[in-house]
Amino acid sequence: MTSTIAQDEIRTLIEDQAAAMRAGDADAVVARYAPEIVAFTLAPPLAHDPAEMRDPDALRGWLAGFAGPVDYEIRDLRITVGGDVAFCSSLNRLSAVPAGSPEPFTLWFRSTVCLRHDGDRWLIAHQHQSTPFYMDGSFAAALDLEP
Amino acid sequence: MTSTIAQDEIRTLIEDQAAAMRAGDADAVVARYAPEIVAFTLAPPLAHDPAEMRDPDALRGWLAGFAGPVDYEIRDLRITVGGDVAFCSSLNRLSAVPAGSPEPFTLWFRSTVCLRHDGDRWLIAHQHQSTPFYMDGSFAAALDLEP
Repeated sequence: MTSTIAQDEIRTLIEDQAAAMRAGDADAVVARYAPEIVAFTLAPPLAHDPAEMRDPDALRGWLAGFAGPVDYEIRDLRITVGGDVAFCSSLNRLSAVPAGSPEPFTLWFRSTVCLRHDGDRWLIAHQHQSTPFYMDGSFAAALDLEP
Repeated sequence: MTSTIAQDEIRTLIEDQAAAMRAGDADAVVARYAPEIVAFTLAPPLAHDPAEMRDPDALRGWLAGFAGPVDYEIRDLRITVGGDVAFCSSLNRLSAVPAGSPEPFTLWFRSTVCLRHDGDRWLIAHQHQSTPFYMDGSFAAALDLEP
């Protein structure tokens, strides 16, 4: 597998994950998580149990907290491939209306996706999503940043 | 280069980076950053300019905000290597006394380090450090978590 083919495969995977989020298709999102996934998400705890991350009901429950679909955009995607291992970085935008809220919110966050090829397809072995926080004494998550 | 040798080299690099932080050796820390590094750090902005990240004076200034050395620990380090590309995840502890403060603080955060081999040595091409934030309406950075 040449690096160009791998790059295309991974770009498609990242775009498919975003499309699955927009479609609210939790099964499709978690289908690409490796059994051993190390997951650092926007919410506590520090790291998530792989079985919890791979449970589509957990993601479905989270998506159910929004009225209507979520919008999801990937920007500044960079993909580095070496053989059957790869890593990606991007800035992602999530826009949605929390259930019961009159107002939509938009959040930009940093995303790192690390993959391994299992001989058949690419799997997400590590995922890290975050916002920075303000070191001005407020220690508030920096939810108002834009690329 | 076999995967075992690469794993050892990368483990040594990660430990050397922690040792350099404990020693306050900013030059040693930034020496392993690739020219194109994509850096997502604890503080804003979302992503940092590579030249800024590779400037030891910026890190020196940050370290000068503490009275005495910082303590730095790496836990749950996982390394995945494929040819000349690798990724690592860990939970890191930073303990230090802010200048002018009577009290030390301890912060656990998530760390992802992605590397490429430039033919001579491993370089950090992407680094992502973060805490999660509380989704309880406070939107406070979760600075009190422990592994």
